[in-house]
Amino acid sequence: MEELQTVDQELLEKIADMLGKPVGAVNIRKNSGCASRQSTENIQITSKTDKAGIDIHIKAGTVGETCYIPVIITESGLNEMVYNDFYIGEGCDVDIVAGCGIHNEGHKDSRHDGIHTFYVGKNAKFRYAEKHYGSGDGTGGTIMNPQTIVYLEEGASVVMDTTQIRGVDSTKRDTKIVCGKNAEAVITERLLTHGDQFAESNMEILLDGEGAKSRVISRSVGQDNSVQVFYPRMVGNAESFGHVQCDAIIMGNAKIRAVPEVAANCMEAQLIHEAAIGKIAGDQLIKLQTLGLSAEEAEDCILQGFLA
Amino acid sequence: MEELQTVDQELLEKIADMLGKPVGAVNIRKNSGCASRQSTENIQITSKTDKAGIDIHIKAGTVGETCYIPVIITESGLNEMVYNDFYIGEGCDVDIVAGCGIHNEGHKDSRHDGIHTFYVGKNAKFRYAEKHYGSGDGTGGTIMNPQTIVYLEEGASVVMDTTQIRGVDSTKRDTKIVCGKNAEAVITERLLTHGDQFAESNMEILLDGEGAKSRVISRSVGQDNSVQVFYPRMVGNAESFGHVQCDAIIMGNAKIRAVPEVAANCMEAQLIHEAAIGKIAGDQLIKLQTLGLSAEEAEDCILQGFLA
Repeated sequence: MEELQTVDQELLEKIADMLGKPVGAVNIRKNSGCASRQSTENIQITSKTDKAGIDIHIKAGTVGETCYIPVIITESGLNEMVYNDFYIGEGCDVDIVAGCGIHNEGHKDSRHDGIHTFYVGKNAKFRYAEKHYGSGDGTGGTIMNPQTIVYLEEGASVVMDTTQIRGVDSTKRDTKIVCGKNAEAVITERLLTHGDQFAESNMEILLDGEGAKSRVISRSVGQDNSVQVFYPRMVGNAESFGHVQCDAIIMGNAKIRAVPEVAANCMEAQLIHEAAIGKIAGDQLIKLQTLGLSAEEAEDCILQGFLA
Repeated sequence: MEELQTVDQELLEKIADMLGKPVGAVNIRKNSGCASRQSTENIQITSKTDKAGIDIHIKAGTVGETCYIPVIITESGLNEMVYNDFYIGEGCDVDIVAGCGIHNEGHKDSRHDGIHTFYVGKNAKFRYAEKHYGSGDGTGGTIMNPQTIVYLEEGASVVMDTTQIRGVDSTKRDTKIVCGKNAEAVITERLLTHGDQFAESNMEILLDGEGAKSRVISRSVGQDNSVQVFYPRMVGNAESFGHVQCDAIIMGNAKIRAVPEVAANCMEAQLIHEAAIGKIAGDQLIKLQTLGLSAEEAEDCILQGFLA
């Protein structure tokens, strides 16, 4: 186990709201090694033996526990591919806090690719939070490509909140959720890009079971010369309800594309999509400025509210 | 010039609301020949010499005139590719009525592919109506693949209404509109598919000029085993406003996909998209039945209203 430095603790606070050692199951991955691990009676974390990554087994009926699995990288030039598998037993009601922080002071790219797969038992609920953040003054890039796959059995549900805060030069997000009978997925994605950053987010929600429901909310801000592309896809294969909402604020010379798909393969599927791209409303800026804020403060205030 | 038969007249009424010989410029294409042509002082129709199709020149300043250019096919197995080019002079305000009707009593497919290109001068306005319809008891298919390209100069505008009524087995629609400064395009697409029909509609609206505006309304009904795919694409390359709205009613075993794209390449572009796919609302059906309509009549009434 490696000692945590100040920079590590700053990253952990940014991406997982961790101050000191948290209560619950924990696995801190640092520079491809394990900086800290703690299982609990109900949440067992074990290393994979065939490839990088961990298995997390959560006992059926576990309620009110949290599992933290943040990843931090402070070594410039590090490039890793990690597989984490989650087995969430029937009737669980748990929180999982993931996230990745890269502090790059060097001139080589640092990159984390993570594949998280969730097998969620009957009537289990979980909340999944994932924050991505980059820092450091190096010329090397910070790259994060998360892949998230969730299989929800009958009556299972997930509330997923993903946030890319700042400093991530390139990201390609792939999310796939398969909803069984009466399963429900609520996904909120928040993304801010600046400088010359690039972000792509592909999402596929399959409403396979009768009574499946899903709601996707995507909120993004593109600043400077950054480029964003969204491909959310909601597929109704059964009597089901799906709603996709993409809102984007465009600033500077940014470019934003939203290409959402709603596909109904069943007469009883009801699918709705909305998307809007535009700049910050001028009257909102003026109103805040009349309240005493500078133009910049007013802009920040609106962006914070939008991404909150 | 070929004589028009009863079946021809029925097709012409269905696709162009033509009863007898209309007032204005006319070109009736029948089974790849010319069944009728009439130019006016302001609207000149001439045959192309290098390929199938016509050139339509509308003098600058022409106001209040209508040009009819329907296409009918009654020969089973006919397969044609037609190029029609429209030059609409500055300051015009005209109506163009196109449309294609195929009556197929045979066992071979009949197919019309038409490429319509519009060069629209400064501040010219035009309305473009296009209806597609198939009939006949033959086993041969009716296939229509229209391609429509519109270049709108400064201040020009188009109001385009396209309707696929019934009986078209396969269609691939490609529409591209390039909006210059202060140009405006309003496009309404209505589509009904039934049986084993397939329909694909690709649309690209480029908001290239400052002050360009566009609104796309797509309304579709998919019945039986039919399949529909929509790819509307609204691109804001300048200070502009674009709105895409796709509403679809799904019935029987139909499959409907809507994959709309909004792409902002300029901070001053404001783009909005909405899409909804669902079945007919049950309470609407019940209300109409309490007013004395049968279940089938109630359904028809709702579909007619939806596609009106």
